[in-house]
Amino acid sequence: MTIHYPNGKRYTPNVEETISSKIKRDEKKKDFSFSNRGKTLEDEINETNAYYLSRQIAIIHKKPVPIQIVKVEYPSRSAAVIREAYFRTPSTTDYNGVWNGYYIDFEAKETENKTSFPLNNVHQHQVTHMKDVINQQGIAFTIVRFSTLNRYFVVPFPVLNEAWISMENGGRKSIPLKIFETRTYEIEPSYYPRIDYLEAIKKIITNEEI
Amino acid sequence: MTIHYPNGKRYTPNVEETISSKIKRDEKKKDFSFSNRGKTLEDEINETNAYYLSRQIAIIHKKPVPIQIVKVEYPSRSAAVIREAYFRTPSTTDYNGVWNGYYIDFEAKETENKTSFPLNNVHQHQVTHMKDVINQQGIAFTIVRFSTLNRYFVVPFPVLNEAWISMENGGRKSIPLKIFETRTYEIEPSYYPRIDYLEAIKKIITNEEI
Repeated sequence: MTIHYPNGKRYTPNVEETISSKIKRDEKKKDFSFSNRGKTLEDEINETNAYYLSRQIAIIHKKPVPIQIVKVEYPSRSAAVIREAYFRTPSTTDYNGVWNGYYIDFEAKETENKTSFPLNNVHQHQVTHMKDVINQQGIAFTIVRFSTLNRYFVVPFPVLNEAWISMENGGRKSIPLKIFETRTYEIEPSYYPRIDYLEAIKKIITNEEI
Repeated sequence: MTIHYPNGKRYTPNVEETISSKIKRDEKKKDFSFSNRGKTLEDEINETNAYYLSRQIAIIHKKPVPIQIVKVEYPSRSAAVIREAYFRTPSTTDYNGVWNGYYIDFEAKETENKTSFPLNNVHQHQVTHMKDVINQQGIAFTIVRFSTLNRYFVVPFPVLNEAWISMENGGRKSIPLKIFETRTYEIEPSYYPRIDYLEAIKKIITNEEI
């Protein structure tokens, strides 16, 4: 049982989200500003995870995009080709793994805003999943990049959750930059590793002053 | 950044593995014997994980199959359709998550053999990944179902690794049932949850006698 195929049930993905995210991402790819050299936050985190893995510092991987496969062709003497498939909504965050006995779980988000992080970047299933992780004594957080400012923050789950609950109760729909500066851990981007988020995790664990 | 698309690099999957696994799995689906009611081991573990999740006992998910997407169509007023995509080789095991502060990571395998478990069910990248997990103080194991016998075993990584190393040094290419009976944790399948593997994990952690 090596490659697992889906259960055959047809799934209706959230079309608008899928398409708009794709378009957004494609636009982002074209942003070859000097600050991040055209890399998406995902690229930067993947590089960082590869660095951690190669040095056996931490074992953290991005989860694949969930896909519902409907039709596969098997051309002779070449690779199986998926000819019909649909995007599914993930039920977890994008990254997880283990570091030094700790379960690590996070989502990565970027915004071009300069003054606040819009909460419509975050989805209910992600908040629910991170809450579940915290309840099981795992470590859950969000890495937020303010792309225009070239600033990166590690947001412990309680800070995100507080803003989320406030929004649900009619409060503001974004987190001001000021909150990032005072209640989250800023990461200075470097070259190798690019986004050394484990340093922030160590502070979260020891509850160090920000 | 909600749905993540691949990096655009074309990937050549392991065709033979992909196809033969698919065929094997399809055959398995048709096996409606009373013992497992036609369910694959994957179905049974997914049900168990859903049980754990609904009761907040543990947060463990199956990772999606990694797919390299090449072509996507956006028909108006309906879901985005993937029209060309290829299977990629996973770099990790299939399941991971968190229970009670522990990082949990495992692979699920089934065999129709009655006397031994063939190691060609296991892949190098899975062994490497589980070794990495253990080095980071995570908990890594394999759940093996002897389908014909309707018996289930939780195999701690060191037991698998020992057989794997022995095979690499010219030793036998399978693990005898006797080893499962004496050095792994047998799980009695039940109804709800179907495969209560956390009970075995507790024994692994406390190093309890088998």
